[in-house]
Amino acid sequence: MNGAKKSLRSLLQRKKLDAILFSSLENIRFLCGFTGSDGALIYGQEERVFLSDSRYEEQAKGEVRGAIFKRYQKKNEGIAQSLRALRVKRLGFEASALTWETYQRLKEHLSRVTFIPLTAEISGLRACKEPPEIEKMRKAIQIASESFLDTLPRLKPGVHERTAGDFLEVRMKRRGGEAPAFPTIVASGPRAALPHGKASDKGMEKGETVVVDFGVRYQGYHSDETKTLILGRPDARQKKIYDLVRKAQERAIRATRPGVNVRAIDRAAREVISRAGYGKFFGHGTGHGIGLAVHEPPTLSPRGSGVVEAGMIFSVEPGIYLPGWGGVRLEDLVLVTDRGCEVLTYLSKDLKDNILKG
Amino acid sequence: MNGAKKSLRSLLQRKKLDAILFSSLENIRFLCGFTGSDGALIYGQEERVFLSDSRYEEQAKGEVRGAIFKRYQKKNEGIAQSLRALRVKRLGFEASALTWETYQRLKEHLSRVTFIPLTAEISGLRACKEPPEIEKMRKAIQIASESFLDTLPRLKPGVHERTAGDFLEVRMKRRGGEAPAFPTIVASGPRAALPHGKASDKGMEKGETVVVDFGVRYQGYHSDETKTLILGRPDARQKKIYDLVRKAQERAIRATRPGVNVRAIDRAAREVISRAGYGKFFGHGTGHGIGLAVHEPPTLSPRGSGVVEAGMIFSVEPGIYLPGWGGVRLEDLVLVTDRGCEVLTYLSKDLKDNILKG
Repeated sequence: MNGAKKSLRSLLQRKKLDAILFSSLENIRFLCGFTGSDGALIYGQEERVFLSDSRYEEQAKGEVRGAIFKRYQKKNEGIAQSLRALRVKRLGFEASALTWETYQRLKEHLSRVTFIPLTAEISGLRACKEPPEIEKMRKAIQIASESFLDTLPRLKPGVHERTAGDFLEVRMKRRGGEAPAFPTIVASGPRAALPHGKASDKGMEKGETVVVDFGVRYQGYHSDETKTLILGRPDARQKKIYDLVRKAQERAIRATRPGVNVRAIDRAAREVISRAGYGKFFGHGTGHGIGLAVHEPPTLSPRGSGVVEAGMIFSVEPGIYLPGWGGVRLEDLVLVTDRGCEVLTYLSKDLKDNILKG
Repeated sequence: MNGAKKSLRSLLQRKKLDAILFSSLENIRFLCGFTGSDGALIYGQEERVFLSDSRYEEQAKGEVRGAIFKRYQKKNEGIAQSLRALRVKRLGFEASALTWETYQRLKEHLSRVTFIPLTAEISGLRACKEPPEIEKMRKAIQIASESFLDTLPRLKPGVHERTAGDFLEVRMKRRGGEAPAFPTIVASGPRAALPHGKASDKGMEKGETVVVDFGVRYQGYHSDETKTLILGRPDARQKKIYDLVRKAQERAIRATRPGVNVRAIDRAAREVISRAGYGKFFGHGTGHGIGLAVHEPPTLSPRGSGVVEAGMIFSVEPGIYLPGWGGVRLEDLVLVTDRGCEVLTYLSKDLKDNILKG
């Protein structure tokens, strides 16, 4: 937060902005603490105003820190009124969060204000986590991991994917999670070739691989982890693909330290898979930042940009997906430290620990 | 869907559009069946193209109907490429869903295309529900209602709000719900004055009113309902406020039929509350449409516009919130019929059925 506030202060100066209008709920929560589902934050050098409607008035008064509260009836009019009161002439805005419609309405209300789109300048605002944020993410990981272990006895032949996925989500809730971070993925056999194969009515079968991708939200912060299980003795192909993905993941984790380009980390994983001839079956990036949003900067992919910094938390999750056959994905979350990284997720990704002989 | 498709056909003609670019996931799901979390739909008079990335390729091929699938690596480039291939010259877009940033990037890629913002023209696209949609919403309501009844024994003095709310969410999941429609509200005593008071660590106490606002998603469609319980014998003020809100709700439901302006329905509820002197303690609208999104058109409020049509489903949920004391809100979902409306939610909102004597 302190780092983020410092970077906003320098951004306001550098771009000669009187204020920045934040509309994404994650940035609003990050900057002033509001946890509700509608509002806007005007962030100036000295003055900060959080605006919302009457539904959230009492909540905002209890939660918001470092900003005064203003209630609006019509959102755009309320924002415009506050900007006029603050005599804002140059306004930065979140270009990848503000809709075209809202932008136009605000322009109409504020014909003398210059609007400055901000994208790259603020995209990394939340990327480096402070200790209290890291603690919340550790707790989210713990809730999810323990819930996964609760679910293990149900990951077996004859059980429907959905039954296992629902059980896992119920356990996460029971263990103190706020909500699943995303629809839990339980994808078995050929369905494991779907990188986002939400748990279905398919029954799991002996001999199949099962990709389980799960996460939970705790105090606004998310976990995200993927295990791939083999229901029975792995055959040669399962073993080969699993080992390749594991090796790719280990290489990427080993490449992670401050100052390294995100593309280099992606490449470390991708090379292992490509050299073995499976490059075209690894269609997604190697990882993504995570925090108040499940997907946030940095993006670790061949098209990513920027270098890794201490305090960043992101996923490392290579995968191989063979249509008709199935797939393997292994995902851990890592925290970048001064000299390397710490793997925050602690469930084993070694093949020997993921063979379920039911 | 047939009504929606007809209205899109006429919109394309009327505005001389070659295609409309849909970016909201709800409209994408509604128009082509895709249930994943990223993609875009180009909807032309003859040709329809659904685009997503490799993660969703297999899923899209299984789910999408009435559109061909195209995979992209970079989203905006992929969309631009398809629009060029379709020789689109005039493109409508969802102005309240497309971000300023995406709009600019697409403009850069497509300098010769005229972009036409669509807001009001498409805002009501999903407002009138077809029978299969209504069935899904009935099922969502049933899951939520039965889960509420499961939870009733835990809505009592000494239990923490969060314990009751978590239990309700777990039951909804167990009964086949996909996820809570929103963070479940359990707001007791003075916290009931927060219209969006998410379940907290506060213990419920004898004599308090407890507002429970809950809903679930089933096959993409949502339920939403609010009960207010009195933990013990209601005192004079609780009885008075409850009766007022109930009367306001009944008036609004009675006013609901095709051809009536949404403001008239809001007014029917608001007048009851205002005449009793509590107008300023009812700070939100009387209701909102619901379906694939929890909040969608129509909006029943003093600032709403348009008339009600058969097939619409919306909430009727007046409330009175007295800071420091607490609040009462009663919410049902109604389906507009040919001559009036059917109340879909079936848990009683009568005071006598909501007094819990420990």
